[in-house]
Amino acid sequence: MTSTHPTALDRLVKLLSKLPGVGKKTATRLAYHILDNDCVYANALADELAVLHRVILRCGTCGGFTETNPCPICSDRSRDHSLICVVERAQDLRVIEESREFHGVFHVLGGLIAPLEGIGPGDLTINKLVSRLETQNVKEIVLALNPTVEGDTTALYIQKTLKNFPVEITRLASGLPVGGDLEYTDRLTLSRSFRGRVKM
Amino acid sequence: MTSTHPTALDRLVKLLSKLPGVGKKTATRLAYHILDNDCVYANALADELAVLHRVILRCGTCGGFTETNPCPICSDRSRDHSLICVVERAQDLRVIEESREFHGVFHVLGGLIAPLEGIGPGDLTINKLVSRLETQNVKEIVLALNPTVEGDTTALYIQKTLKNFPVEITRLASGLPVGGDLEYTDRLTLSRSFRGRVKM
Repeated sequence: MTSTHPTALDRLVKLLSKLPGVGKKTATRLAYHILDNDCVYANALADELAVLHRVILRCGTCGGFTETNPCPICSDRSRDHSLICVVERAQDLRVIEESREFHGVFHVLGGLIAPLEGIGPGDLTINKLVSRLETQNVKEIVLALNPTVEGDTTALYIQKTLKNFPVEITRLASGLPVGGDLEYTDRLTLSRSFRGRVKM
Repeated sequence: MTSTHPTALDRLVKLLSKLPGVGKKTATRLAYHILDNDCVYANALADELAVLHRVILRCGTCGGFTETNPCPICSDRSRDHSLICVVERAQDLRVIEESREFHGVFHVLGGLIAPLEGIGPGDLTINKLVSRLETQNVKEIVLALNPTVEGDTTALYIQKTLKNFPVEITRLASGLPVGGDLEYTDRLTLSRSFRGRVKM
């Protein structure tokens, strides 16, 4: 077998296969696709990647991704700054904004408490949340964390940490997804939707 | 809703979603993953993409991707240059090389005849294959094209075009895949494996 792999292609495949959900086969397909096309696409993608971390920063207040500091949300006077929605990652912010349901501001934790993965409260921005409560007039904290063991643990920890502040702490409702089927709902979700049942 | 999408991120998402099999959701996940990591990965990927089309060329003989011209396969004197394997795309070459079954040289067609997509014989490198036959001593052409309508059409066209050359034209066997199940084999594959049945 003659060595036929151009090494530049192999290096690209190796880098692409580090992306989430991209194995060696998919990475190879992507690399050949980029190579099959003219260099305009490859160069455009290269340019965007090269500037990405220089152009996008973390907002000093909420921790979300932004091109200005503070970010457009934190500097928007028309939003309710007494209402803080706590999310795990910066990308969760986009989904919530797209639902157009929330008009307060955000706080990005940067993860969830996960002892098995070695992530403790000190690795998250909980201290920063506390200082926001100390310096600003915050009435309500909405915890928009995943309904998982890690999400529940983190929610409980934050609740305990903030228990001396005159702030209401709420959490997103957990229950049947819209369009879901009762028959295929797992026991835990069903039990949560019973406990959180609402009056009609 | 405050505009929260950093435009640099949106541009990256738009570019990534042009990759095959990558929709807007996956592109967003990939973009945030790249952003979540430090800039080392993004810069490495940017560098590879920027040099890709400058470093990798098409072999002037077979049309495969290579960093040298002619490619390592075409310049390998230990390979059988009287045996040419015709493939649709340059990436097919890698799969065949990895099977370690073939010791001849290659010819990349650059596509298959597909009238509905407006791809005719003139869009492929069939003329180049003819001139290879005219200038070199070729004994056998193995058509390693997909067993599809387009693959069959292209194989027939090449067979007709080369009918005046003293060259044997063969095609990869079509039949049951190794490890496959007779019960789940489609009619056409089954009929082909009957027609191509081999003596034990």
